[in-house]
Amino acid sequence: MTPEIVPIAYAGGVLRILDQRALPHDERYIETSDPAEVAAAIRTLAVRGAPLIGIAAAYAMALGARRGDDPAATAALLLATRPTAVNLRWAVERMLGAARDATSADAEAARIHDEQRASDVRCGEHGAALIPDGATVLTHCNTGALATGGIGTALGAITTARALGKRIEVLVDETRPLLQGARLTAWELARAGIPHRVIADGAAAGIIARGGVAAVFVGADRIAANGDVANKVGTYGLALAAQAHGVPFYVVAPVSTIDASTPAGASIEIEQRGEDETLSLGGTRVAPHGTRALNPAFDITPAALVSTIVTERGILRPPYDAAIAAATREAVAR
Amino acid sequence: MTPEIVPIAYAGGVLRILDQRALPHDERYIETSDPAEVAAAIRTLAVRGAPLIGIAAAYAMALGARRGDDPAATAALLLATRPTAVNLRWAVERMLGAARDATSADAEAARIHDEQRASDVRCGEHGAALIPDGATVLTHCNTGALATGGIGTALGAITTARALGKRIEVLVDETRPLLQGARLTAWELARAGIPHRVIADGAAAGIIARGGVAAVFVGADRIAANGDVANKVGTYGLALAAQAHGVPFYVVAPVSTIDASTPAGASIEIEQRGEDETLSLGGTRVAPHGTRALNPAFDITPAALVSTIVTERGILRPPYDAAIAAATREAVAR
Repeated sequence: MTPEIVPIAYAGGVLRILDQRALPHDERYIETSDPAEVAAAIRTLAVRGAPLIGIAAAYAMALGARRGDDPAATAALLLATRPTAVNLRWAVERMLGAARDATSADAEAARIHDEQRASDVRCGEHGAALIPDGATVLTHCNTGALATGGIGTALGAITTARALGKRIEVLVDETRPLLQGARLTAWELARAGIPHRVIADGAAAGIIARGGVAAVFVGADRIAANGDVANKVGTYGLALAAQAHGVPFYVVAPVSTIDASTPAGASIEIEQRGEDETLSLGGTRVAPHGTRALNPAFDITPAALVSTIVTERGILRPPYDAAIAAATREAVAR
Repeated sequence: MTPEIVPIAYAGGVLRILDQRALPHDERYIETSDPAEVAAAIRTLAVRGAPLIGIAAAYAMALGARRGDDPAATAALLLATRPTAVNLRWAVERMLGAARDATSADAEAARIHDEQRASDVRCGEHGAALIPDGATVLTHCNTGALATGGIGTALGAITTARALGKRIEVLVDETRPLLQGARLTAWELARAGIPHRVIADGAAAGIIARGGVAAVFVGADRIAANGDVANKVGTYGLALAAQAHGVPFYVVAPVSTIDASTPAGASIEIEQRGEDETLSLGGTRVAPHGTRALNPAFDITPAALVSTIVTERGILRPPYDAAIAAATREAVAR
């Protein structure tokens, strides 16, 4: 049995966050009752992964309610942290709508977390069905327990398939600049005992071309109404390589990642992060002093390159506009 | 005037090699009269770049001749270092054919070096003509003075265009795992005063999609008879992104990079390098202990994705099999 990964836990007005910046070598935690500290943890990627930052923001709203802070002010603080992942906005808005007092805020945040866990299980089941026994699959960034607080999205599909007895090898894009693949996904796969190898991001296309990959599995930070997918930078190049070689490209994400108010990927704001993330590594400057960087944190994969979108409500297939409209209507109606 | 970069120099039976592993922060040199030390420098990437390792191997053959070593043994030692770049084999075979004694070996090695310098100038002129004034161009790995011992190939085209007065910005793929872009290309561009920004390799496709790149310039480690190009891992993904957005994809390489005896890219041996290059950075392990890596050093870009191949003998256009046959016939005839 794999030891459980607990990236976030809330009890007695204290939020305990696993500081993902220190992984895989150190497991250290941030404990706080201050929404501003949670916002800082989100901004600095101590806590990350679109669903998990939604959960962290929900707990931060609950912490604010306990302190009697103005909910609108706490919401503004959280919404200013990262612009691309829509789950953050979704969770904050849901907390604003439901959390009239500290008790109901605690309950609503716990509900958001519980729903994500249940959603992950269903995403994992739907996604696992797409993985053939004996397959080598390729994934990007981290979409496991560390990204959602449940079993994960794309990585949850892989671990679910393994739990069902399928033999799998995982190729893990290291995912520069912050190495969420090499540091976090490899760590989760090692704990789960799943064979895996890390590759440089640039190596993926050539490996796919040589026929070594049965499917690509990624998560999403925001999905537009037409099925365009914003995800960790490097995803779009992977999708192009998968298409060039007829390899299925699967996006696994909860319905809360869909932003029906965004018509297409072109209108999704791409977060530009600090240059130092690219110019340095582990505190060591790699580029010459004086050299600048361009560091977009995400890119847009057009819907045409996405084979299916796996959600907790089942598998969405093209044309995505209709499938997405139906899935989000259902989510609102429930 | 840009200070000259001297990655290799030979005088009085001593070869002086700039140790590129220590750049950009340290300029240190390896001085040796021993062919085995040159072979080690090639294997460890202290000296790198397809044309430059050809030159280093030529000088190593000259060092062997001075010592009275068996030329066949020195050749075998050098050919075992790195399998993909064909310039190495080309230079060693040329030395075997021409170097009957130490004096003629010295002269032949110097001739190979001089020819590369002259070739670079012509490649630079042909390539510069492809760069519009005001363009942002994207490049991968290092193809400058540090790669050839002259002004470089792809990067030589860029510096030549700049010397002709064109305004240029260069986006530099950092080029994991060994960061030849962030460490070496950025260093050369900074010395030349050319505006540049480093990007994570995975960021290139999204930046190209947003319309920010006028052309992609790369070098080559080996070009097959049909125009397929083996180059630093990550090149193929760049070529896919360029094609998807109608951005010209230019390969700049001397005719010595063409291997007429290799019919197509599929038969080019791809060097697999040590896992630690991917799992660590600057001596710091980034992946969990126990995690493995897959580290191909090159990939193959099919000829269909290459807009033109720029050589010292002019610009080759599709269909490449005929153009390459003509260019290599000319080279042999001369």
